[in-house]
Amino acid sequence: MSELRKDPILDHWVIIAAERGRRPCEFATEATPELSTSCPFCGGNEHMTPPEIAAIPSEGRVPNTEGWEIRVVPNKFPALAIDGEVDRAGIGLFDRMRGVGAHEVIIESPQHNIDLPDMSCEHIVKVLDASIERVVDLRIDPRFRHTVLFRNHGAIAGASLNHPHSQIIALPIVPKLVRDKLIAAREHYLRKERCIFCDLIEQELAMPERVVLQNDHFIVLSVFAARFPFELNIYPRQHQHDFVLMSEEQKWALADILHETLCRYRSILGSPPYNMMIQSAPNTTPRAGHPEYWGTISYDYHWHIELVPRLTKIAGFEWGSGFYINPVSPEQAAGFLRGDEDTA
Amino acid sequence: MSELRKDPILDHWVIIAAERGRRPCEFATEATPELSTSCPFCGGNEHMTPPEIAAIPSEGRVPNTEGWEIRVVPNKFPALAIDGEVDRAGIGLFDRMRGVGAHEVIIESPQHNIDLPDMSCEHIVKVLDASIERVVDLRIDPRFRHTVLFRNHGAIAGASLNHPHSQIIALPIVPKLVRDKLIAAREHYLRKERCIFCDLIEQELAMPERVVLQNDHFIVLSVFAARFPFELNIYPRQHQHDFVLMSEEQKWALADILHETLCRYRSILGSPPYNMMIQSAPNTTPRAGHPEYWGTISYDYHWHIELVPRLTKIAGFEWGSGFYINPVSPEQAAGFLRGDEDTA
Repeated sequence: MSELRKDPILDHWVIIAAERGRRPCEFATEATPELSTSCPFCGGNEHMTPPEIAAIPSEGRVPNTEGWEIRVVPNKFPALAIDGEVDRAGIGLFDRMRGVGAHEVIIESPQHNIDLPDMSCEHIVKVLDASIERVVDLRIDPRFRHTVLFRNHGAIAGASLNHPHSQIIALPIVPKLVRDKLIAAREHYLRKERCIFCDLIEQELAMPERVVLQNDHFIVLSVFAARFPFELNIYPRQHQHDFVLMSEEQKWALADILHETLCRYRSILGSPPYNMMIQSAPNTTPRAGHPEYWGTISYDYHWHIELVPRLTKIAGFEWGSGFYINPVSPEQAAGFLRGDEDTA
Repeated sequence: MSELRKDPILDHWVIIAAERGRRPCEFATEATPELSTSCPFCGGNEHMTPPEIAAIPSEGRVPNTEGWEIRVVPNKFPALAIDGEVDRAGIGLFDRMRGVGAHEVIIESPQHNIDLPDMSCEHIVKVLDASIERVVDLRIDPRFRHTVLFRNHGAIAGASLNHPHSQIIALPIVPKLVRDKLIAAREHYLRKERCIFCDLIEQELAMPERVVLQNDHFIVLSVFAARFPFELNIYPRQHQHDFVLMSEEQKWALADILHETLCRYRSILGSPPYNMMIQSAPNTTPRAGHPEYWGTISYDYHWHIELVPRLTKIAGFEWGSGFYINPVSPEQAAGFLRGDEDTA
């Protein structure tokens, strides 16, 4: 019997229609990509990208030459342009503004054809450092209201290159999805004087069938109302509204648990294509002396990471209803990923 | 320069980042599927489906044998089960109910490997008749609050068989996406005593750069804040909240404009995979003497059809923000589909 479940934050329902006897390895995944000699992200090909914005290590090296571990460059085909004013305008019922924003690529390694599970925790901490540095810098620009940080792995997940990289897009508005999450957190806080995500973490720990992994600072949960098979959320255990506030200790704990989670995807699902999104607070202070509404309510928020392996297709039912049909029960997915022996 | 646009109904923004010089035929589409001898939807294979629910013609034929033009059967692998009570339950922050609902398939022809553009308008009217008959019948069941009617064409769009068919899913709740549309229509009506969709149609006709096709009863619009390249909406020109209320004349006009629209997709985009969704009012009277909230506000709604060719991939940015990046301007898409000679 399938089941309907409601996402407590976003208020949408999903259908959990677990297919009997379907093993994780039966989901189609992609062939391993070829090695590339003409990849603009590879070490030695620095001339193939626009000039770099930042790099680790930041000293002792001529920019745009070899010798880097992590390199940040503007996207060569940006969705938004960095120059100009936003020019908001209304035309009858319609609203538009110019496509002003930033679109940057964090090249996570000079090495092609590897993924986060192939990196050391020390290196993943550096990737986090580079991401935080860029988000903090982009927030200084008063035109930008929100920064989206995401990672696509595999062609099905939208990656155009197999070289490990994540992307940052700074936007002149706060997206509706983020606003909906902020509003849910604010409404819960006004009613209960508690964070809805803290409540959710406590509830899940008390009844740990959906807990995949945990350490001192983070918890990996199989999502109760998962839209996709093996969809996971990673939460900091302590209330924290913005991922740039992570302590050094938290960063190491996150690197460790992220590495382990992706290793388990690889061993259980056979290197699936996936998307990873950091859901964090919007820019709280874009304009001096003019607090931004979404910034002022963001302290009730609890940042987290969303991980979505791309194993199923999205069809007319999903587009027409916003409903998702998930063929794997979140509890069974957690069992597989924990390595429980009795997971059927 | 790209542009941000807001959907006036759903209140989300999209990025229109038109790629210069990209021709419609450059979007990858699927290879033409093979002919199948073991397709359960083909004429002569009636024994391969669960027993039929309805058929056209309805008389002069033994059920589950040949001689039908359109046949409705239960989905062999339903997302929801028809039997049982819904059993709503809450567990702390979480809400769940049993997966009760209907999941039916409308087999639109005994012939394999054809699509709506290959059918006559007379036949498409019969497909509409069968759909309306089923939706009206399913609404009698007081457990069902909303019916989703959709059509997937091509494997990328989620079709598991190449045989022409659409699907109906009856749900025990009104999906959030539908609720959001109903609320937008209600709020506009309360402010202005007018339908927001009627206003939108009038505005688009006055400035017809996004009008693709029109006839006496319907208008095909390239969506102002389109999430996807060549995304279209088809609206009845007269205010009508529910598609089952269509007159005979409207049905013929819809069959004609739908046929023509899909022919243009085929000629301009080369037989793209696509999803088609009918967005109509929820069940207004599921329980006698107990008006359903979403039913009571549905008279301000204006039903429509959404058409989405599946030409782009959905990646981390979209999942993380609800934002979509559309590489084709809606005005240019309309120009291509109208056959304007000067569309660059």
